[in-house]
Amino acid sequence: MTKIAFIGLGNMGSGMCANLCKAGHEVRAFDLNAEAMKAAEGHGASAAATVADAVKDVEIVVTMLPAGKHVLAVYFGDDGVAAHAARGTLFLDCSTIAVEDAREAASKADAAGFLMADAPVSGGTAAADAGTLTFMVGGPEEAYAQAKPILDAMGKNIFHAGGSGNGQAAKIANNMLLGISMIGTCEAFNLAEKLGLDAQTFFDISSTASGQCWSMTSYCPAPGPVPAAPSNRDYQPGFAVAMMLKDLHLAAAAAKAAGAEVTLGEMAEKIYQDLDTRGHGGLDFSGVMKDLKRQLD
Amino acid sequence: MTKIAFIGLGNMGSGMCANLCKAGHEVRAFDLNAEAMKAAEGHGASAAATVADAVKDVEIVVTMLPAGKHVLAVYFGDDGVAAHAARGTLFLDCSTIAVEDAREAASKADAAGFLMADAPVSGGTAAADAGTLTFMVGGPEEAYAQAKPILDAMGKNIFHAGGSGNGQAAKIANNMLLGISMIGTCEAFNLAEKLGLDAQTFFDISSTASGQCWSMTSYCPAPGPVPAAPSNRDYQPGFAVAMMLKDLHLAAAAAKAAGAEVTLGEMAEKIYQDLDTRGHGGLDFSGVMKDLKRQLD
Repeated sequence: MTKIAFIGLGNMGSGMCANLCKAGHEVRAFDLNAEAMKAAEGHGASAAATVADAVKDVEIVVTMLPAGKHVLAVYFGDDGVAAHAARGTLFLDCSTIAVEDAREAASKADAAGFLMADAPVSGGTAAADAGTLTFMVGGPEEAYAQAKPILDAMGKNIFHAGGSGNGQAAKIANNMLLGISMIGTCEAFNLAEKLGLDAQTFFDISSTASGQCWSMTSYCPAPGPVPAAPSNRDYQPGFAVAMMLKDLHLAAAAAKAAGAEVTLGEMAEKIYQDLDTRGHGGLDFSGVMKDLKRQLD
Repeated sequence: MTKIAFIGLGNMGSGMCANLCKAGHEVRAFDLNAEAMKAAEGHGASAAATVADAVKDVEIVVTMLPAGKHVLAVYFGDDGVAAHAARGTLFLDCSTIAVEDAREAASKADAAGFLMADAPVSGGTAAADAGTLTFMVGGPEEAYAQAKPILDAMGKNIFHAGGSGNGQAAKIANNMLLGISMIGTCEAFNLAEKLGLDAQTFFDISSTASGQCWSMTSYCPAPGPVPAAPSNRDYQPGFAVAMMLKDLHLAAAAAKAAGAEVTLGEMAEKIYQDLDTRGHGGLDFSGVMKDLKRQLD
C-alpha cells in the first residue's frame, strides 16, 4: 500500500484514481472541480483542500492534466507540489504534454531533489475505467522501478521508453502514425467502395495483405467488419477528433523543433483541424470515414 | 494439366510462367524479348512466334503486361488474342492496370464470347519466383472457378473480389493504403529517433500499440527490428519506388474518376514521384526513411 496524491480528476484521471483506490492504495485526491472531487471520494479517495494538502506525507504524486503549462504550474508554481512534497517523493506525470515541457519539468524536479517520470497513456476513458491503459514511461531507471507497481494498478502494458521525455516522444510518434493510418484506412475503404467493393470484401483482402494496420483490424472505420469499433455506433468515441488533434499538434511542434519532416503528419493534423473547426471535435477520430462519404456538415 | 498461353515474360511474368511449367501445365510462351523467350524455354515452355501462334488451341490465356493499353492491344488488337483463341478460352489478365481498362477489356471479351478475369498480384519478383503471390481476382464466378487452379500454381492467397475490375480496385486501394502507411511509419520512426528514442524501443512499443501496421511489423523501414526487411540491405528492393508510384498513379486516377477524396493518397503519390524524379525509382519504397534522414541526393 502506497500513499498517493492524485491531482487532475478529469475524464481519464477519475477512472485512474478509482483504480488506485481499488488496488488498496491510500489516495488523497485534488481537483478544482467539486463534482469530480465528490466522485473521487465515492471511489474511496480522501479529499484534499489544496495541492499542498494533497501532497503532504505522500510517497508518490500522480498528475493527469490538460497541458504542459498546467503540469509546470502544479509542480513548480507557488504553493505547488515541489514546495510541499516530502523529500524522496516520486513525481509521476501521466498527462500528455510537449516533450520539451516534460524534459523541463524533469530537470526542475531534479534541481529540487526529486525523481520524476513522464508516463502518458494510450487508450480512452473505457481503458482508464477498466485499468487497461498503456503507459509509455520516460525517466531514470529508478523512477521507472518506483512507478511500475502504481502504473500496473491503472494499466495493462507498461513500457520504459528511456530517459525523461521519452514517454511523450513514444506516444506522439505512435499517435501521429495512428492518425495517418486511420485517415489512410478511411480513404482506402471509401475508394474501394466507390469502385464497387463492399467493406467486408475489402477488409477480408487487405487485412491479410500489406494494407493491414491497427486502424483497420482493431478499429475499422467502415461499419461491419470489426463489431466493437465506433463506426458501428455512428462514430461516438472512442478516441475523439479533438484528442487526436491535440496529439498531432504536439507531434508537429516536436517535429519542427527537432527538424524532422512529417509531411503526412502535418496533413493529418490539417484534416483533423478541419473536422474540429467544423464542430466535429467530439466525433470519434475514425469519423473521417463519415466525412469522406459527405455525411458531415 | 491445362494448355496455357503465357504472354509477357518480364520480371514478374518469367517466374510465374516457370511455376506454371513446374506444375505440369503445357505452356506456350510469347514475349517480344528474345532473351526472355529463351529463359521461358529453359523453364519448360514452348516458344510461340506470335500472339496468334501462342493462343492456338489453348484453354487459358495468361497475360502479364505493363499497362492497360498493352492489355487492350494484345487481346483485342489486329491479330490479337480474341481474333485467334478458340471459343471457350478463358482470358486471365494478371497485369496491374486501371480499373476502367480492366472493365473495358472484360466487356470487349464478353462481346466476343469470352470469359475474362482481372487478377493483379501483390508480392514482388521473389514471390513470383517462389509461387507465393497474392492474387486479387475480379470477374464472374465461372471465370474465377476456372482461373483458381491456375492461380494456385503461381500464388498462395487467392481472393475473389467480385465482378470485373474488382481485382484491380482491391489492389490499388490496398496499395494506396500501403504507400500511406509506409511513409507514415518512416515519419514516425524518424521523429521518434530525433526525439531520442532508438528504433528498437519505438518498435517494441508501437508494434504492440495502435501504430501497428504491416509496414512496421513485416517490412520495418528502420534497420534492425525486422531482419528480412530491405532497410537492412540499404533499401534494395523488395518493392521499388517506381512500382509503388505506378500503383499510386492508378489509385489517384481511379479516385478522381469515381469522385473519391484521397488527400493522403495524393500526398503519398507526390512523395514517391519526387523520389522517382530525383532518380531513386529503383530504391525500395521503404527508402523514404533514407530520404527523411537526408541520405539521398
